[in-house]
Amino acid sequence: MSRLRRLAVVGLGLVGGSVARGVRIRGLADEIVGVGRDPGRLEEARRAGAVDRTAPELAAGIRGAELVLLATPVGSLPALVREAWALLEPGAVLTDAGSVKVPIVAAAGACPARPGRAFVGGHPLAGAERSGFAASRPDLFEGAVTILTPAGSTPPEAVARVAALWEGLGSQVRLMSADEHDRAVAVISHLPHLVAYALVGSSGDALPLAARGFQDTTRIAASDETLWVDIFRDNREALLAALGGFTRLLARWEAMLRAGEWAALEAELARIRELREKLG
Amino acid sequence: MSRLRRLAVVGLGLVGGSVARGVRIRGLADEIVGVGRDPGRLEEARRAGAVDRTAPELAAGIRGAELVLLATPVGSLPALVREAWALLEPGAVLTDAGSVKVPIVAAAGACPARPGRAFVGGHPLAGAERSGFAASRPDLFEGAVTILTPAGSTPPEAVARVAALWEGLGSQVRLMSADEHDRAVAVISHLPHLVAYALVGSSGDALPLAARGFQDTTRIAASDETLWVDIFRDNREALLAALGGFTRLLARWEAMLRAGEWAALEAELARIRELREKLG
Repeated sequence: MSRLRRLAVVGLGLVGGSVARGVRIRGLADEIVGVGRDPGRLEEARRAGAVDRTAPELAAGIRGAELVLLATPVGSLPALVREAWALLEPGAVLTDAGSVKVPIVAAAGACPARPGRAFVGGHPLAGAERSGFAASRPDLFEGAVTILTPAGSTPPEAVARVAALWEGLGSQVRLMSADEHDRAVAVISHLPHLVAYALVGSSGDALPLAARGFQDTTRIAASDETLWVDIFRDNREALLAALGGFTRLLARWEAMLRAGEWAALEAELARIRELREKLG
Repeated sequence: MSRLRRLAVVGLGLVGGSVARGVRIRGLADEIVGVGRDPGRLEEARRAGAVDRTAPELAAGIRGAELVLLATPVGSLPALVREAWALLEPGAVLTDAGSVKVPIVAAAGACPARPGRAFVGGHPLAGAERSGFAASRPDLFEGAVTILTPAGSTPPEAVARVAALWEGLGSQVRLMSADEHDRAVAVISHLPHLVAYALVGSSGDALPLAARGFQDTTRIAASDETLWVDIFRDNREALLAALGGFTRLLARWEAMLRAGEWAALEAELARIRELREKLG
């Protein structure tokens, strides 16, 4: 793509901070503007060289930006999409990095049409159990998959502009519907977080004996619960469906344990071990 | 402790191989004898310098050893303890590294008394999703906890000899009953393995989108299912109890998700996140 003249990043936490740092290092934009409500965090990002300028107000912050990325907590995004959409200048593309796409894409879809502006929902599948600008890294998206969820009516040029940002950051872009996205992340991200919390929560007195396997399996249970309860709320139906599939499988295995069906259990685990080995 | 004159290691897989390599590097024994049925693996261990001599037969392999460590798969251990006990020379201590202790300690307890010999059950809480001698490492036990499960009648000198081996390998030794051990590892090791397999097994089409969090959480689902089904079988009751505690907690959270009790869920997750952060 042609290099961006101006990128506005709204929210400079783990994801927004990592985008700004990566764009800076890889020279993907002439100017990066950081927008946020916390003056301390804005100043931290500016001093770190992640952004050129900062703005506490959305209107001033996104002015003149060809691409506006909203990277605030997922619960805030529907309202912020509506607010940013009303301020967006002709030729600008609005995107986001929220972990749940249906409510955000629905909020954007319900906005009045404004010719020359476009919204493209996005979600980089990269994260960490830590959050905040201090945890951000320019290489966070290298090798990660980023999902974009354009509507049928989204102009292809707008999708291409957002895709180019994530590809420029080393990410591999896939397109799918918001609904497909939400069902997939319920399975590969939201359910594993709930399960990791439950493993720690039910470990009782044995916890101090935890070895490396337990630590790996439950690392994401050190994640910020405020962010995650927001995500669970916004993706409740898909999470409940994923949880249902998981608990049905465990209940079937529990019956096999009770019945002593060891060969059958081993055959199932062998198939799963092979799938897991392919993930690396 | 005084350095061992002769250590016999029966089974040169991940654990036995790592013990032999660690003892060699740290100079904890004058001579290490490797015992096993697979001539190729014995030769591999000898060429790697992990053992001085090898023996395919238990009787020849453990002759003259002050300490005999059984490190074969958990299902084989009760019979092997009986066999080794009958061959043990005066002054020798027999121990094992099996992941489930009640069946092994029971097998040892049922052996006829033989003055001057002692058995001490043991389990280093260290492992890897890989297995076999090729995965062994001299530092596998550094910083790990090793649990010993002596009976009330076990001579303290025998416990001290086994404890000195593991401490010499960098491990921290804790004593508990076999029953306590089995309940604790069901919670912190056996259940997480079952859960990791279930997360992968119920992931369906979403699996290729897995990001780092999912990979960490399910790393142990790449573990050898034959070993693990043996462990699940040998520790069935404690595993079922741990699974029950885990699924009851998840069922409670499922009800909170359905009822929209977000603040209550967040409060529980906050407490768990703090516990998990302390684990490092």
